[in-house]
Amino acid sequence: MSVSDESLMSASNAAQGERFTDGARSFEGRLLQRTLARLGNPEVEFTLWTGERIAPRGVEPVCRVRIPRRATLVSILANPGVNFPDAYCDGHIEIEGDLVRLLEAVYLAGERAPVPSMLERVLGRIRRPHVNTLAGSRANIHHHYDIGNAFYQLWLGQTMAYTCAYYPTEQTALDQAQLAKMDHVCRKMRLRPGEHVVEAGCGWGALALHMARHYGVKVRAFNISREQIAYAREWAKRDGLAGEVEYIQDDYRNITGHYDAFVSVGMLEHVGVDNYEGLGAVIARCLGANGRGLIHSIGRNFPAPMQPWIEKRIFPGACPPSLAQMARIFEPHNLSILDVENLRLHYAQTLRHWLELFELAGDRVQQMFDARFVRMWRMYLAGSIAAFTTGTLQLFQVAFATPHNNDVPRTRAHLYVP
Amino acid sequence: MSVSDESLMSASNAAQGERFTDGARSFEGRLLQRTLARLGNPEVEFTLWTGERIAPRGVEPVCRVRIPRRATLVSILANPGVNFPDAYCDGHIEIEGDLVRLLEAVYLAGERAPVPSMLERVLGRIRRPHVNTLAGSRANIHHHYDIGNAFYQLWLGQTMAYTCAYYPTEQTALDQAQLAKMDHVCRKMRLRPGEHVVEAGCGWGALALHMARHYGVKVRAFNISREQIAYAREWAKRDGLAGEVEYIQDDYRNITGHYDAFVSVGMLEHVGVDNYEGLGAVIARCLGANGRGLIHSIGRNFPAPMQPWIEKRIFPGACPPSLAQMARIFEPHNLSILDVENLRLHYAQTLRHWLELFELAGDRVQQMFDARFVRMWRMYLAGSIAAFTTGTLQLFQVAFATPHNNDVPRTRAHLYVP
Repeated sequence: MSVSDESLMSASNAAQGERFTDGARSFEGRLLQRTLARLGNPEVEFTLWTGERIAPRGVEPVCRVRIPRRATLVSILANPGVNFPDAYCDGHIEIEGDLVRLLEAVYLAGERAPVPSMLERVLGRIRRPHVNTLAGSRANIHHHYDIGNAFYQLWLGQTMAYTCAYYPTEQTALDQAQLAKMDHVCRKMRLRPGEHVVEAGCGWGALALHMARHYGVKVRAFNISREQIAYAREWAKRDGLAGEVEYIQDDYRNITGHYDAFVSVGMLEHVGVDNYEGLGAVIARCLGANGRGLIHSIGRNFPAPMQPWIEKRIFPGACPPSLAQMARIFEPHNLSILDVENLRLHYAQTLRHWLELFELAGDRVQQMFDARFVRMWRMYLAGSIAAFTTGTLQLFQVAFATPHNNDVPRTRAHLYVP
Repeated sequence: MSVSDESLMSASNAAQGERFTDGARSFEGRLLQRTLARLGNPEVEFTLWTGERIAPRGVEPVCRVRIPRRATLVSILANPGVNFPDAYCDGHIEIEGDLVRLLEAVYLAGERAPVPSMLERVLGRIRRPHVNTLAGSRANIHHHYDIGNAFYQLWLGQTMAYTCAYYPTEQTALDQAQLAKMDHVCRKMRLRPGEHVVEAGCGWGALALHMARHYGVKVRAFNISREQIAYAREWAKRDGLAGEVEYIQDDYRNITGHYDAFVSVGMLEHVGVDNYEGLGAVIARCLGANGRGLIHSIGRNFPAPMQPWIEKRIFPGACPPSLAQMARIFEPHNLSILDVENLRLHYAQTLRHWLELFELAGDRVQQMFDARFVRMWRMYLAGSIAAFTTGTLQLFQVAFATPHNNDVPRTRAHLYVP
């Protein structure tokens, strides 16, 4: 989970002298030391099969990593961003200390890293993520979301909401925070009974049900994940809301009809920046004169590719946008951005709650899959916590309206009534 | 105040058949009719010295314009965006009806207008606004802000704040709304006693005084307007706050020192998009690890040049950015956008209050300047109301923080405690 991709900001922070690691004697040890320098010298101690101890100079390491075999180190040195997390998943390295703190150290170091070489930049451009054509999106979404609803039920909580929750207080529990997020989203759109809402990327369907149940709206909810749609339809039937919520197994690009509001929570990461203007065209076409909507997405402070291990193993085709990139949805269609809220630290908290539940269900997960899968998912959740706490990732909720909609709330005070 | 520049969005709305104006017989009348079609057929009736009446077909005009001389029409046809408002200021046309509604009709028509011709696009690129070099900025700011504090005192209210106010309720009065805006800004930055704040573009100084008085912070406030700085220094002395607030007559590019917060309310419009990355560098350089700040600016839903009459007569060098353009301040410096609030309709209300006070002081203004100046200022204020009510202009408050600042408020509820 290293971050040569994270080093765009590094020029001004490249002074590294005082942090240099030390202790290498062998050729491999010196190579590791050089690679760590290139990654901004994370505050992590490494011990090798040779007995060498390579530690940051003058600071206490936040975590210790043991690399017991030469072949593992060679692989990590060749492509640390992918092969270090892979080595953890394969059980080829041992980590002593807190995984989240290790990954935070790696992310923070990435910002201090020297500017990538010309060769690295060229390679970075060649390495294209999985594309999001209609068929490509189906394959990408299937990879992550169709590995079994039973698995996700172990650690997502009652709502099965697989997106950043909203914590009004530090003590709010996961399920309450997910419901608070749904209310926060609905209030931002100021939904009124009888209105029609279209949802793009509805996950297991909780938000659509919540809108219908508590705000009296009719919802058409789109998703290309077969398993999620099946689960959502069953849930709507069980709760007697099948007449209010229609789940449609189709791509957001095929949305038809006219609606009062458009909402999408946690789909944009999978859309791909090249498709944003097209997404905006879908929104503009399906909203009426007093239309409004909300898009909730993981984002970044500046454009950068997805961490390569996450893109390869967890979310093929995913790319969290910067706010300027998100604006490509709205600006070509004269849609008016009303409100942006950054919920970065709420996502760190959500992920901590998920990771707790995941660890509690570790034995069950291992029975369902295997030990490698458990480590992979732990790496992904811990790495995501680290990305949000270090500001490597952001979470943007963007509320918007059609350009002449003057029936928008004067202030945001209505979001904060208890 | 017509809007050939506003017609970027027009391709999809170009169906004009049912709105065509009618009634022209003379060559000039037919030329006007053709120009109106090019401007999207605003719902305005024109009468000419020939007795011709050119009115929208099938809709009641919102306003009537009489053009009593051939030379005036020729001038308007040559460059309506500049010469129509100029003709009003020169007293060469008569307007019967509400000026704001007239200008709203013009802005809304602009969105329906056909795509500008290749020649118009080329001319649009050649016509460069006044540039904002250090010397250029001084000249541009002097043009608007140094025409006499006594003039602005007639209609800005007690606070002399010349930026969008914040109206917690529809009944809030101007001065209260300006104070509410200052509190809203201070709360968004969560200022704490003893902190140091730098303000870029401080106007007549009210916000700096408000921050020092009510939030216990030390402020260094920059402005290149000589008259405003003199006024602000006098005010600070009178209020016994000269030890807390230092007003500096210098360009934001010359800000030095380290601060807890950076604030700029209503300066960005004068900065020029080409200088945004440099502004971000100033911010990044002067903020510490837990730094944060706020930029408040007129904006747009998509990039477009300033309305040409406003740029020529009122605000040389001014350009309201889209949100993606504003992001050029933050993204190259890894600054984290926390909160964006669009206060477009608050600015329409602020301008209505200013226009009321301005009209009440019309005789005084005419004595200080002349009747042409009164009409020019009325055109500017009315046109600005129309721009905000039609969504031609937006008002963005963008709160931001340095990338590792995790000491940011969990929610925005603290902004809404009474």
